[in-house]
Amino acid sequence: MKHTDYHDVTLEKFAGEGAKGAGIRWLVGERDGAENFAMRMIELEPGGHSPCHSHPGEHEIFVWRGSGELMVDGKNYILEPGIAAFVPEGIEHQFRNPGEQTLEFICVIPLNK
Amino acid sequence: MKHTDYHDVTLEKFAGEGAKGAGIRWLVGERDGAENFAMRMIELEPGGHSPCHSHPGEHEIFVWRGSGELMVDGKNYILEPGIAAFVPEGIEHQFRNPGEQTLEFICVIPLNK
Repeated sequence: MKHTDYHDVTLEKFAGEGAKGAGIRWLVGERDGAENFAMRMIELEPGGHSPCHSHPGEHEIFVWRGSGELMVDGKNYILEPGIAAFVPEGIEHQFRNPGEQTLEFICVIPLNK
Repeated sequence: MKHTDYHDVTLEKFAGEGAKGAGIRWLVGERDGAENFAMRMIELEPGGHSPCHSHPGEHEIFVWRGSGELMVDGKNYILEPGIAAFVPEGIEHQFRNPGEQTLEFICVIPLNK
């Protein structure tokens, strides 16, 4: 059992290649006993972005705060609070924040890939 | 790929035994191509609750709107926007909304259990 305000989970810098102004909070993960999937809060500062990449393992996302855009396979989709999205595995994608407020979204990934 | 405002996903009545004033929106599930886990938005009307039950399959939750409480193994935890929680499988739990506003929370479950 875990119960926490997400602000109390450490915001770790995401320093992977191609990332800028990106951070991650592991809300529920392996260290909490989760075995199948993990829930993270991703934060992108204004002007920030994730790497543009593809990988095994899908994303299920839900936007919490701010706005931005999600590029999937060359198409852009708007991100704003209340938007849910599914990015299947193996498809090129990138999260970007061209706005003036931090973009925060829930991103769930499988733990077995 | 799926991209939607969560309001555009049908709110289905959750009519299981022990549930009251409960609804569910399948934001990402098997019909969208998800194979490992599903993201749902659960809604509990004021005075509503989920069944008090245990089952295989964990919950990873994140509160979006409203407030309420989560009982896990006889202990009560507050639910309000920004709270994340992990309910391991096989533990008795119940979501309740004693408040005056609809409680809405993301609830992710495995699809293989």
